Amino acid sequence: MGVALGAGLAVSIAGIGGGIGMGIAGGKAFEAIARQPEVGGDVRTLLFITLAFIETLTIYGLLIAFMLVGKA
Amino acid sequence: MGVALGAGLAVSIAGIGGGIGMGIAGGKAFEAIARQPEVGGDVRTLLFITLAFIETLTIYGLLIAFMLVGKA
Amino acid sequence: MGVALGAGLAVSIAGIGGGIGMGIAGGKAFEAIARQPEVGGDVRTLLFITLAFIETLTIYGLLIAFMLVGKA
Amino acid sequence: MGVALGAGLAVSIAGIGGGIGMGIAGGKAFEAIARQPEVGGDVRTLLFITLAFIETLTIYGLLIAFMLVGKA
Amino acid sequence: MGVALGAGLAVSIAGIGGGIGMGIAGGKAFEAIARQPEVGGDVRTLLFITLAFIETLTIYGLLIAFMLVGKA
Amino acid sequence: MGVALGAGLAVSIAGIGGGIGMGIAGGKAFEAIARQPEVGGDVRTLLFITLAFIETLTIYGLLIAFMLVGKA
Amino acid sequence: MGVALGAGLAVSIAGIGGGIGMGIAGGKAFEAIARQPEVGGDVRTLLFITLAFIETLTIYGLLIAFMLVGKA
Amino acid sequence: MGVALGAGLAVSIAGIGGGIGMGIAGGKAFEAIARQPEVGGDVRTLLFITLAFIETLTIYGLLIAFMLVGKA
Amino acid sequence: MGVALGAGLAVSIAGIGGGIGMGIAGGKAFEAIARQPEVGGDVRTLLFITLAFIETLTIYGLLIAFMLVGKA
Amino acid sequence: MGVALGAGLAVSIAGIGGGIGMGIAGGKAFEAIARQPEVGGDVRTLLFITLAFIETLTIYGLLIAFMLVGKA
Amino acid sequence: MGVALGAGLAVSIAGIGGGIGMGIAGGKAFEAIARQPEVGGDVRTLLFITLAFIETLTIYGLLIAFMLVGKA
Amino acid sequence: MGVALGAGLAVSIAGIGGGIGMGIAGGKAFEAIARQPEVGGDVRTLLFITLAFIETLTIYGLLIAFMLVGKA
Amino acid sequence: MGVALGAGLAVSIAGIGGGIGMGIAGGKAFEAIARQPEVGGDVRTLLFITLAFIETLTIYGLLIAFMLVGKA
Amino acid sequence: MGVALGAGLAVSIAGIGGGIGMGIAGGKAFEAIARQPEVGGDVRTLLFITLAFIETLTIYGLLIAFMLVGKA
Repeated sequence: MGVALGAGLAVSIAGIGGGIGMGIAGGKAFEAIARQPEVGGDVRTLLFITLAFIETLTIYGLLIAFMLVGKA
Repeated sequence: MGVALGAGLAVSIAGIGGGIGMGIAGGKAFEAIARQPEVGGDVRTLLFITLAFIETLTIYGLLIAFMLVGKA
Repeated sequence: MGVALGAGLAVSIAGIGGGIGMGIAGGKAFEAIARQPEVGGDVRTLLFITLAFIETLTIYGLLIAFMLVGKA
Repeated sequence: MGVALGAGLAVSIAGIGGGIGMGIAGGKAFEAIARQPEVGGDVRTLLFITLAFIETLTIYGLLIAFMLVGKA
Repeated sequence: MGVALGAGLAVSIAGIGGGIGMGIAGGKAFEAIARQPEVGGDVRTLLFITLAFIETLTIYGLLIAFMLVGKA
Repeated sequence: MGVALGAGLAVSIAGIGGGIGMGIAGGKAFEAIARQPEVGGDVRTLLFITLAFIETLTIYGLLIAFMLVGKA
Repeated sequence: MGVALGAGLAVSIAGIGGGIGMGIAGGKAFEAIARQPEVGGDVRTLLFITLAFIETLTIYGLLIAFMLVGKA
Repeated sequence: MGVALGAGLAVSIAGIGGGIGMGIAGGKAFEAIARQPEVGGDVRTLLFITLAFIETLTIYGLLIAFMLVGKA
Repeated sequence: MGVALGAGLAVSIAGIGGGIGMGIAGGKAFEAIARQPEVGGDVRTLLFITLAFIETLTIYGLLIAFMLVGKA
Repeated sequence: MGVALGAGLAVSIAGIGGGIGMGIAGGKAFEAIARQPEVGGDVRTLLFITLAFIETLTIYGLLIAFMLVGKA
Repeated sequence: MGVALGAGLAVSIAGIGGGIGMGIAGGKAFEAIARQPEVGGDVRTLLFITLAFIETLTIYGLLIAFMLVGKA
Repeated sequence: MGVALGAGLAVSIAGIGGGIGMGIAGGKAFEAIARQPEVGGDVRTLLFITLAFIETLTIYGLLIAFMLVGKA
Repeated sequence: MGVALGAGLAVSIAGIGGGIGMGIAGGKAFEAIARQPEVGGDVRTLLFITLAFIETLTIYGLLIAFMLVGKA
Repeated sequence: MGVALGAGLAVSIAGIGGGIGMGIAGGKAFEAIARQPEVGGDVRTLLFITLAFIETLTIYGLLIAFMLVGKA
């Protein structure tokens, strides 16, 4: 029982923060572009990097979840 | 028992953050467009990318949930 | 026991964030339209896309819930 | 035991977010109408669509709850 | 045991969000009327619709609770 | 055991949101009256309707609680 | 065991929201009176009504708690 | 076991909201008096009534706790 | 076991809200005195009354805790 | 087991609110002194009283914890 | 088992509020000093007193934890 | 059972804070660049360092999770 | 079992508040320095003291955790 | 079971606060640099110190987790 539960929680809990964080970062980026359209390129690059960093937090959980599912 | 519970939690917990994050990002995008209509194209592209990134957080959970349901 | 509980949680937990997120996005859209009525078309299209993206987060849960109920 | 508990949770948890989200959306709509009475029609249509989208989140839960109660 | 617990939770959890949401919607309506008394009719109609939508979220729970109590 | 616990939770959980929601609605009403004393009648009527709507959310829970106590 | 626990929770959980809600309503009333002393009578009447409505939310819980204690 | 736990929770959970609510109400009263010293009498009377109302929420819990302790 | 746990929770849970509430009330009092030094006496008296009211919320819990410890 | 757990919780839960409350009160006091240095003496006295009141909330818990530890 | 768990919780739960409270108090102190550098001495003394008061909240927990560990 | 659950929680709980923290840091960086485009280089370097520091918090969890999975 | 769990919780729960508190204190310090660069020395000293005080909250937990691990 | 669970929780719970705290501190640093580019060096040094302090909070947890894993 614990293996499936562990896998399910590993892949999903980090997503709570990830989703909110991505929303905040994205929202602030739109705001910055609307205020200073000429920094659009800079902000876009940094936004992708920030989103990618947040994505990795969940991918670690996905990794552990795969390993646990393999043992279920 | 644990398998079904794990599958149910895997697919849904990340959605808490995902839904809130998408709402924040979308809302900020409307605000940006209303303030600077000429950056609409830029913001729209970035909004789709942000939403897609958040979507993936839940899709990882869906993936694990499918794998767990297959074992239930 | 776990199957029904898993199905119930799968379909409902993501709804917490989904409902709040939709409310934020919708509310910000009304605000944007009230400030700049001429971007109404743009905002409406983006609002529908945002709502649809959030909807999918719960539909994944519905999918898993159906699969679990079938096994109950 | 689990079936009744699952049904009860399926129909009610999503309502937490749904109620708050509807309240935010509705409240922002009143604000928009008070600021720009002439966009009232647009906002009203969008408000109904937003409320309907949020409603569906709970209706999915109701659906699963009915299916579970049938098995109780 | 589970049936009574499920019925009790079904009828009450959605009320957390419902109560807060109704309070936000109502409060914003008073604010809008105080700022623009002439949109009072419009806002009142929309307020009733919003409150009714939120009410339904709990009524679904009441429905499931009745069905569960019948089996207790 | 579950019956008494279910009855106790049914009547009280919805009260969390109800109390906060009534406080928000009432507080906003006082604010509106202080800003625009001449809309006092309108706001008072709408406040009563909002409070009544929120009250019903708890009364549903009271109803289920009575039914459960009868079976305890 | 469950009966005492149910009685204890029935009488106290609603008090969380009730206390906060009364505090918000009362605080806003003082603010309104300080800003517009001449609406003091109106606000006082409405404050009592709001407090009474919130009080009833807990009294329902007290009622159920008495009934449960009688069976303990 | 449950009786003592029920008594302990009955007397303390409502205090969470009560303490915060009293703090908000009291704080707002000081603010109102500092802004409009001449409404001090009115605000003081209303503050006492608000505090008394919040106090009763906990006293109901104390009542139930006494009754439960008598049975422990 | 339950008696000690009940006593421990009875004396401490109300303290969460009490501590925060006292902090809010005290902080607002300092603010009021800094803005209007001549209302210092009034505010000090009301602050003591507010703190005393909040204190009683925890003292009820202390009372129940003593009674429970006596039975442990 | 329950005795130690009860003692541990009795002494620590109230500290959550106490710590936050003291921080808020202290922070507001610094703000008041920076805005009106001549009320420094008044604010300092009131700050000590507020901190002492909050301290007592935890000391009650310490008292019960000592009594419980003596029985462990 | 309960002794170790009780000791662990006794020493750490109060730290949640303590850490946040110290951060708020410290942050407000920096703000006050930046706005009115000449009150630096007064604010520093009060900051130390506030931090010391918050520290004691956790030290009570440490005390109980030591006593419990001695019995483990 | 506990090993898988421990591994799943180790890798995911820290992600809640990590995701939100990265979103806040990233969002503030976009804001800073939009306000002062010439500090873009400085901010970008510091943003990477901040993101890397937050990343390590989760990597520690990943490390422990790997070690636990190896024992599962 | 309880010993390891107690040790794990002792060292980590206080860190929730500690991390947030340090972030608030640090952030406010940067703000103060940016507004009044000449108080930089004062603020830096106080920041270190505040961080050290918060650090001790977790170190108490580390101490208890070591003592518990030694008994595991 | 408890050992692995304890290790997993020890390394991850503190990360919730750590991640949010680092994000707040980092974000405020960018803001300070954008407002006063000439204090960049000072802020950068203090930011590193703050991040390092927060990092240690989690490293204590990592330490305990290693010690517990060694006993698993």
